[in-house]
Amino acid sequence: MTAHSFSELHTIPFYECNVNNRISIPMLINILILASEHQNEKLGVDQLYLIDKYGIGWVVTSYSIHISQLPKKDSVVKMTTRGTSYNRYFAFREFWLHDQDGNELVKVESIWVLMNEKTRKITPIKDDVIKPYQSENVRRVPRLPRPKRIESTDKVTAKEYQVRWSDIDFNGHVNNSRYPEWMLDSLPMSFLNNHEPANIDIRFENEVKYGNRVTSSVVVDSSNNDKIETVHEIKSNDVLSASATIVWKENQVKGND
Amino acid sequence: MTAHSFSELHTIPFYECNVNNRISIPMLINILILASEHQNEKLGVDQLYLIDKYGIGWVVTSYSIHISQLPKKDSVVKMTTRGTSYNRYFAFREFWLHDQDGNELVKVESIWVLMNEKTRKITPIKDDVIKPYQSENVRRVPRLPRPKRIESTDKVTAKEYQVRWSDIDFNGHVNNSRYPEWMLDSLPMSFLNNHEPANIDIRFENEVKYGNRVTSSVVVDSSNNDKIETVHEIKSNDVLSASATIVWKENQVKGND
Repeated sequence: MTAHSFSELHTIPFYECNVNNRISIPMLINILILASEHQNEKLGVDQLYLIDKYGIGWVVTSYSIHISQLPKKDSVVKMTTRGTSYNRYFAFREFWLHDQDGNELVKVESIWVLMNEKTRKITPIKDDVIKPYQSENVRRVPRLPRPKRIESTDKVTAKEYQVRWSDIDFNGHVNNSRYPEWMLDSLPMSFLNNHEPANIDIRFENEVKYGNRVTSSVVVDSSNNDKIETVHEIKSNDVLSASATIVWKENQVKGND
Repeated sequence: MTAHSFSELHTIPFYECNVNNRISIPMLINILILASEHQNEKLGVDQLYLIDKYGIGWVVTSYSIHISQLPKKDSVVKMTTRGTSYNRYFAFREFWLHDQDGNELVKVESIWVLMNEKTRKITPIKDDVIKPYQSENVRRVPRLPRPKRIESTDKVTAKEYQVRWSDIDFNGHVNNSRYPEWMLDSLPMSFLNNHEPANIDIRFENEVKYGNRVTSSVVVDSSNNDKIETVHEIKSNDVLSASATIVWKENQVKGND
């Protein structure tokens, strides 16, 4: 039995794009989550059902994002997702973004847990919650690449952010898509205008709340001529909230083509 | 001859919503602008055409936004827009948001100018640029309500923001939807969670660029029992970038209904 796969089309409006008229990383994450929420609804196990019945909700712990090409403003993409496998505590979900000719633009692997909405503690994955996905029950779900950590000897650049009201989800915590926004913004504009992520490994550690200040730190490693790598940490009150390693490539086409 | 009216449907995803699962004000502005861009395309006078042919682009100078009800997450809305009238320098554009039963949710009036992309100076509205809209040529376009200004005797609360890379449009300036985001964020979370704008008069004065710091100042006037009014100013280096007056009402339905 193969896991159910869910697909839908999406047209990318200008306000989901960065200065280069390509979809932004936060919006890339948002539209893929949208597809998974639509699958959850279709299978009768959406957010509201989980909260009402068990007081629980899905929380992502890490993404591994492989980008062949970021789709452009106004382009139509096919979003596909599948709850591939799970064990007692972890669910492995995959996402794909294809262009209209069937070329793969983006592939995302992700690990999810079920969290009690009140206690914020992880709970075992209940049978009736996972069954509709026809996910494979496995002993171990795939282990995603762990982001590197910043070393004390590294040359660090950092920016501070005050969490905004608009950063907050309906559940009172910072929306996951904000972490990559803070991470990217720690890099210089000239770099961001001329480079595009090819690979992002990101891990979420501790939730940040309204009123918190966060520090977005980055180390740029350009010692390898072929690829530039950046290592990111988001901390709040010296507690690690998220970490990421991003591998970059130069923009093939620059600006507003 | 009546001005061409353009309509399209839009489904509101979770990432266009605030903590109350209603569309956020920045996203409300974005989706309406999207409808107007689609009309521009349909009439053969889109952004690219204006830049390529004349090196000019439309810039909004003010909005007057009347909100009966902010649409909810997952709801389908009908967006309608019309380039109603114009004179030598100013164009008057109207927008409507309706629910699927035809009830008006939001009405927006706006004033636009054509700006030279290089010099950032206003240029007269060319005939062939405006003709496709069948707008009425008038001596005076409607005058939108001017936002109040903060007085030196007012009790002011202020927050500072560093312009982020993600705040920047493809043209290198801060996206217009960021000003209301900074304005709203200057208010306490408890207020924002329990109130909703009923009317927003906003005026854009000077463009803000990457690297600038802005101050978002607000004065809350609750002296009138029936309605709370807030007066907002966004300044960068003591220069006024945007001002607004917002009239608030209590949320009819609270939280995640």
